[in-house]
Amino acid sequence: MQQLTHWFTQHRQSILDDYFTLLRFRSISTDPAYRGEIDGASKWLCDYLHKIGMSAEIVPTGRHPLVIGHTKSQRANAPTLLFYGHYDVQPVDPVSAWSADPFTPTLRDNKVYARGASDNKGQLFYTVTALRALLELEKGHLPVNVKVCFEGEEESGSQGLSDMLPSLKEKLAADALIIVDLGIPALDHPAITLGVRGIITMEAQLTASSTDLHSGDLGGIAYNPNRALVEMLSKLWDAKGKVRIPKFYDDVVKISAQEKKLFDWSFDRVFYQKTFGIEKVGGEAPFSPMESNWIRPTLEINGLCGGYFGEGFKTVIPAKAIAKISCRLVPDQDPDQIGKLVAKHLQAIAPQGMRCDVSLHHGGPAVRGRADAKIALAAMDAYKEVFGIRASRIMSGGSIPIVAKMIHTLDSDVLLMGCALPSDNIHAPNEHFSLESFEKGFYVIAQLIRNMGER
Amino acid sequence: MQQLTHWFTQHRQSILDDYFTLLRFRSISTDPAYRGEIDGASKWLCDYLHKIGMSAEIVPTGRHPLVIGHTKSQRANAPTLLFYGHYDVQPVDPVSAWSADPFTPTLRDNKVYARGASDNKGQLFYTVTALRALLELEKGHLPVNVKVCFEGEEESGSQGLSDMLPSLKEKLAADALIIVDLGIPALDHPAITLGVRGIITMEAQLTASSTDLHSGDLGGIAYNPNRALVEMLSKLWDAKGKVRIPKFYDDVVKISAQEKKLFDWSFDRVFYQKTFGIEKVGGEAPFSPMESNWIRPTLEINGLCGGYFGEGFKTVIPAKAIAKISCRLVPDQDPDQIGKLVAKHLQAIAPQGMRCDVSLHHGGPAVRGRADAKIALAAMDAYKEVFGIRASRIMSGGSIPIVAKMIHTLDSDVLLMGCALPSDNIHAPNEHFSLESFEKGFYVIAQLIRNMGER
Repeated sequence: MQQLTHWFTQHRQSILDDYFTLLRFRSISTDPAYRGEIDGASKWLCDYLHKIGMSAEIVPTGRHPLVIGHTKSQRANAPTLLFYGHYDVQPVDPVSAWSADPFTPTLRDNKVYARGASDNKGQLFYTVTALRALLELEKGHLPVNVKVCFEGEEESGSQGLSDMLPSLKEKLAADALIIVDLGIPALDHPAITLGVRGIITMEAQLTASSTDLHSGDLGGIAYNPNRALVEMLSKLWDAKGKVRIPKFYDDVVKISAQEKKLFDWSFDRVFYQKTFGIEKVGGEAPFSPMESNWIRPTLEINGLCGGYFGEGFKTVIPAKAIAKISCRLVPDQDPDQIGKLVAKHLQAIAPQGMRCDVSLHHGGPAVRGRADAKIALAAMDAYKEVFGIRASRIMSGGSIPIVAKMIHTLDSDVLLMGCALPSDNIHAPNEHFSLESFEKGFYVIAQLIRNMGER
Repeated sequence: MQQLTHWFTQHRQSILDDYFTLLRFRSISTDPAYRGEIDGASKWLCDYLHKIGMSAEIVPTGRHPLVIGHTKSQRANAPTLLFYGHYDVQPVDPVSAWSADPFTPTLRDNKVYARGASDNKGQLFYTVTALRALLELEKGHLPVNVKVCFEGEEESGSQGLSDMLPSLKEKLAADALIIVDLGIPALDHPAITLGVRGIITMEAQLTASSTDLHSGDLGGIAYNPNRALVEMLSKLWDAKGKVRIPKFYDDVVKISAQEKKLFDWSFDRVFYQKTFGIEKVGGEAPFSPMESNWIRPTLEINGLCGGYFGEGFKTVIPAKAIAKISCRLVPDQDPDQIGKLVAKHLQAIAPQGMRCDVSLHHGGPAVRGRADAKIALAAMDAYKEVFGIRASRIMSGGSIPIVAKMIHTLDSDVLLMGCALPSDNIHAPNEHFSLESFEKGFYVIAQLIRNMGER
């Protein structure tokens, strides 16, 4: 550790310079206007891997390119680690809510403010920096084989990587896949993540008439689809928050008492009140908030619209009303099957005489890592060494659909980790990443690699 | 009648030319950009009244001007009729849905297509044309005193007329107020309208957190305000369509069996299916559709929004969800009181820990005309004379808040009438008015004035 601290201090300025260079690429993957910035970021990253002594290449996909690199250990039978990250970022709207330009990184209070500062350029770059340090300190030879796979469209569906996976099976083969895109509850609360939920999203459209209607002339005659929709949607949960769709929970794997003991289920209500202004806690009784977030599926209305909702008022009975719905899934729920269950149920409870069209989007299943996998144990040790505190095991309520596909293709162990904080404002204005998080992440990655070399 | 038919045929071209001139003014009252067009239309109209032999003036208001005119009968004790209409129109969005420019009137299949062709320039102008014809035919002397009051902001709240009413009490004093802004069920179904409902509108905003949340990271922890809102709104009606808000129906005046017999309650389900694509009929059991539309109050969700509803999908739990709500009211419901009842009820059923803000807008009470008033009887006769069919008595489910204020100020009888058809596309693209409707409207107004002179 001391050697690493010394190295980091010595190279601090060049690390920050390079990190800022990466942040300056406006690599918004969802907007075709930024295609050149995506290409620029991928090339810069590929060159950077070369510069620190790795083999690296740009792998084109039908969409945004992958940057794939590796460095081979000289040790016989050394395990292979594959680090995953992404160099694309979320859009920056509303730009006016940022206190500085999102692509001109600025350092304030020891925190770097920029789009991607945390998600995921910050976490990706401390990973690369750890590789750089180890390669320098160990004269080009790491104790394990290391591969990296950085994609350019995690924020817009990972279609390119998904399409390419079968052909990359050999190139990406590894004993453990390490997703450096997660976080820890707080800087005094290190943790590794052993699960993310799956997801399926859909749009339901309820049509009641062929045209918008006047709410005076037709009010009392026409059945308002806004009313029908709220009546339908309100029936999707019982009073305890349980989803009332037949078979919805049929495939949910119960967590064993033994497994349950491995995790930190503590819920800091004050943190959620202070950070997000949440007073009314949701979830599904009798499960605790963290159980509801980690090991129970949810159904959420992410979007709701019907009629006129601009300035002023319009006395309209709309022709249709729309709900965008997502379900977060747990093992062993199948995204398509759950999507079809929900769609079928909505159609079953729609009023006769109205048309309910439900379009399902792509989804992905939940992922769980083994707590006793070598990579998980090595990571627990690494966090302890860096933070001086025993790491918790946690899960995430979020979803990274590409992870399930990667594990399925590579048949590897998986570890989800990182040093992002819930307060980093990822996907939001004024995203930031503290240099303390960056430096700790750097040490954790380096120690993790070393620990794996010793096992 | 023959004399009128002859006159109309003789003057047909000049009538159409003048009607088209009025339609060319882009007098959209809600948009300040068209202030000049409003002024242009009001001046043209005032000049036109002079030209046909009436006294007329433009009366400025704090908003858009009124055009007020009159012509005095030479008969002693002649009653005074006040005709109300409006020369402003609704916006034309979406313009792309129009088959021709909304302000370049075009004649197709004997129908005039233009914004305002029916609502209300068409109906206003056949009224003015009837006055022109009678003044010409009767050498400048009508059998009754006639006043007209044309406003320029009916489509945006009538604030100007409303503010001016107290000071116009004498100028507008009349025995009967005739609102030529209604319609008939069909060209073979003449009718006079003896009631419009009142209205109160409001916006309810339900806030659950201080910021939008990630539906993965917080899903199962936060209570989604979209869910809370649909749960709240779904409780506003029982299974029979009755509004479940305490005291909502307390002041509703029941219609007597005798009064009920006066009206035509027939409901043409096929018409609603064909015209509007309505399959599922709403309303309140055990009341029939027309009873629900005319003599029962309603509560409608006119706008519903929360979260993301654009293209694609965003896995958000929004900070807040919004409903725009209106109630149509019947005698003797008080708009403000009903608004407060609804607001209070929404706040009472909002989940603890969420904030429910309700802002009430301006409203207006219901209006009923007396079936045995001279003006109503004279109108029944006029329709019979023009259509050759006995007219029905109907009501409208819509609301014209200014009417209640005018009656209150003038203390006059009221008749709501017109020849608009439900298929005229008022407030919608491709608004039109058939020349048959225009001509029949012309005859009805002329006969009504003559009939009133004989009573």
